[in-house]
Amino acid sequence: MTETPNVPKYYRVRTELESILAELEVGDAIPAERELAVRFTVSRETVRQAIHELLVEGRVERRGRGTVVASPKLVQPLSLRSYTEGAVSQGRVPGRELVTFEELGADADLAEGLGLAFGAPVIHLERVLLADDEKIGLESTHLPADRFGAMARRFDPGTSLYAAIRETGVVFASATERIETVLASPREAALLDSTTAMPMLRLHRVSLDTDGVPIERVRSLYRGDRIAFLTTLRE
Amino acid sequence: MTETPNVPKYYRVRTELESILAELEVGDAIPAERELAVRFTVSRETVRQAIHELLVEGRVERRGRGTVVASPKLVQPLSLRSYTEGAVSQGRVPGRELVTFEELGADADLAEGLGLAFGAPVIHLERVLLADDEKIGLESTHLPADRFGAMARRFDPGTSLYAAIRETGVVFASATERIETVLASPREAALLDSTTAMPMLRLHRVSLDTDGVPIERVRSLYRGDRIAFLTTLRE
Repeated sequence: MTETPNVPKYYRVRTELESILAELEVGDAIPAERELAVRFTVSRETVRQAIHELLVEGRVERRGRGTVVASPKLVQPLSLRSYTEGAVSQGRVPGRELVTFEELGADADLAEGLGLAFGAPVIHLERVLLADDEKIGLESTHLPADRFGAMARRFDPGTSLYAAIRETGVVFASATERIETVLASPREAALLDSTTAMPMLRLHRVSLDTDGVPIERVRSLYRGDRIAFLTTLRE
Repeated sequence: MTETPNVPKYYRVRTELESILAELEVGDAIPAERELAVRFTVSRETVRQAIHELLVEGRVERRGRGTVVASPKLVQPLSLRSYTEGAVSQGRVPGRELVTFEELGADADLAEGLGLAFGAPVIHLERVLLADDEKIGLESTHLPADRFGAMARRFDPGTSLYAAIRETGVVFASATERIETVLASPREAALLDSTTAMPMLRLHRVSLDTDGVPIERVRSLYRGDRIAFLTTLRE
């Protein structure tokens, strides 16, 4: 590998790895760390750092003890539709696994977000979101129990929550969504088969009905290596 | 600090640090690493990991050799307006510093994005975006030179590019924007006074005029610790 001033070694290895990836197909294994270290005459730590970057970008993924070329990221439209509908529109098979179902009293933050009194009963539903059996997100939804308790208690958590809310006659009119990048907590990382070093996308949404009344507050955490969001902006 | 099974030490330190932050004002220094290590009877490495998470989330920032409570993130609307207009709407003073101004031939990717022939002349403008003198983003814009070359050559890079494009009579009608989280390259990290370990938000935009003709291709990189994006979704 030629020496380039001011470019860190790991970044030169990364550039070399990109050429190797260009020749491979999805699912193909990349050469082992020690082999790459010998080939580029760098330490295994340097190789590891270069591979970490490619993992973060979703270009490669761990499979067993090896590292393989990853399939492209799921590109999900930012929309008022549910995760389910978005995944289907991308040709993926959506799935959801229930993690938490509980009733609790609204704290100050939830009371404000949902326009409820402090301590008012709230349903909390937490689910892992899957695309083609891959865990890609963790969705935590809070709903006013007075309005949605009966629906929530008979809700099948393996199906679309938005469809079930609509069946009660409620119409989603608008939502504000805040998007940022965060690191997962140890619990979140474990639920997503990921690590606390992996950048995630955090979406925070409050949806309103046609009367401007809050329907739900949702905090979703998506694996930054497996998903990108797409939006269309208009004047 | 009480022992909690299955919760890593650094995460317990992080939780304790959050209580300390709640008592402090923006700009206040947090206690030194060695002091925190003694207080929580953990290693300095564990304290460092907890502080790294708070840095990534923009809760604290480095100042000189210390670490202080950070001001809140800039919340920028996702819109067809320019960075300049967005920052002003948030009460911040926008700034831009020119990094690159060049004319080049479109590669395959650019030719496709801008609807040009391969090798067609393109203007490349790269600027660091500032909010209240803080470097928060790096914006790389490509424009067809046949259409915008004259404008670009007399353009003051310290001002709004969107305003200058509109002055040529072009109307922005829509844009598609892709949002994901990435790590900065060493060059990008240096330009943003950040590090390659800090998660960033990458926005990739193609804007169209009222005839559906591409105006520009923009790749922006925003510091994940300093910015969040906000969007309103409607049916």
